[in-house]
Amino acid sequence: MISIQEQYPPEFSHCYGCGTRNPHGHKLKTYLDTDGTIARFTPGEQYSGGIPGNVYGGMVASLLDCHGTASAAAFHRRHAEANAPQEGPMGRFVTASLKIDFLAPTPQHQELTIRGRLQAIERRKVWVELTLQEGSVICAKGTMLAIHMM
Amino acid sequence: MISIQEQYPPEFSHCYGCGTRNPHGHKLKTYLDTDGTIARFTPGEQYSGGIPGNVYGGMVASLLDCHGTASAAAFHRRHAEANAPQEGPMGRFVTASLKIDFLAPTPQHQELTIRGRLQAIERRKVWVELTLQEGSVICAKGTMLAIHMM
Repeated sequence: MISIQEQYPPEFSHCYGCGTRNPHGHKLKTYLDTDGTIARFTPGEQYSGGIPGNVYGGMVASLLDCHGTASAAAFHRRHAEANAPQEGPMGRFVTASLKIDFLAPTPQHQELTIRGRLQAIERRKVWVELTLQEGSVICAKGTMLAIHMM
Repeated sequence: MISIQEQYPPEFSHCYGCGTRNPHGHKLKTYLDTDGTIARFTPGEQYSGGIPGNVYGGMVASLLDCHGTASAAAFHRRHAEANAPQEGPMGRFVTASLKIDFLAPTPQHQELTIRGRLQAIERRKVWVELTLQEGSVICAKGTMLAIHMM
């Protein structure tokens, strides 16, 4: 199965969080599943929060942001394909707004699961609901508005 | 002048974004000024967004998040000092919610200025308004609710 990020145009694949062409970055990979989208990621030891044993807030935000824009691209493509076959690479979305509620500390040394669900589509705009969880504990929830740029 | 982060308890100074005791991290430094708080930061070359030449969204979120919790700590301390002298290290705040509006691309290779302003204080809760700008262009605005943990 090919991730959403591997279907981006190569010239727009440099994101530190999820770009296949950024040799330094996290290379987050997002996949469509039946209910929405899913990604799994285990942050490295260095990404501690202020309180040892927890992941820093910026990492949580990064994972939600990259997963959210990939989810928006996939949902937008699927929506368009319902009307007509789509060709060419996956669309590239940018974040217009991201609201994150931090519900519980995000533990280090654990695989995190990030999920996205389509909330609404309106032309170039896609609203996505996001969760980040460890096991059955939802550590953060997000709401994103992403816009189709190219 | 000593930054807010340098006044955190050492045991809570491991944040990748701003901890003085995290050897791998960004070590963001936040200062109180007359109107609020200020930090300056130039992200490294590797922190590209999907579109080359711009900073990735997770970095923008990280800078706002770390600057916001430091601002909350400083505002809370100043508020308490108006009533009685305060002793011991700076309080440590965690993010309950963070809303970011991305208003313009954040360019790479430039010094970014992050500012915080106190919106409200209610016991352990502090609301902070945040901006991130390059020159005179505001690239992102944020609103944070931070909570005093220890």
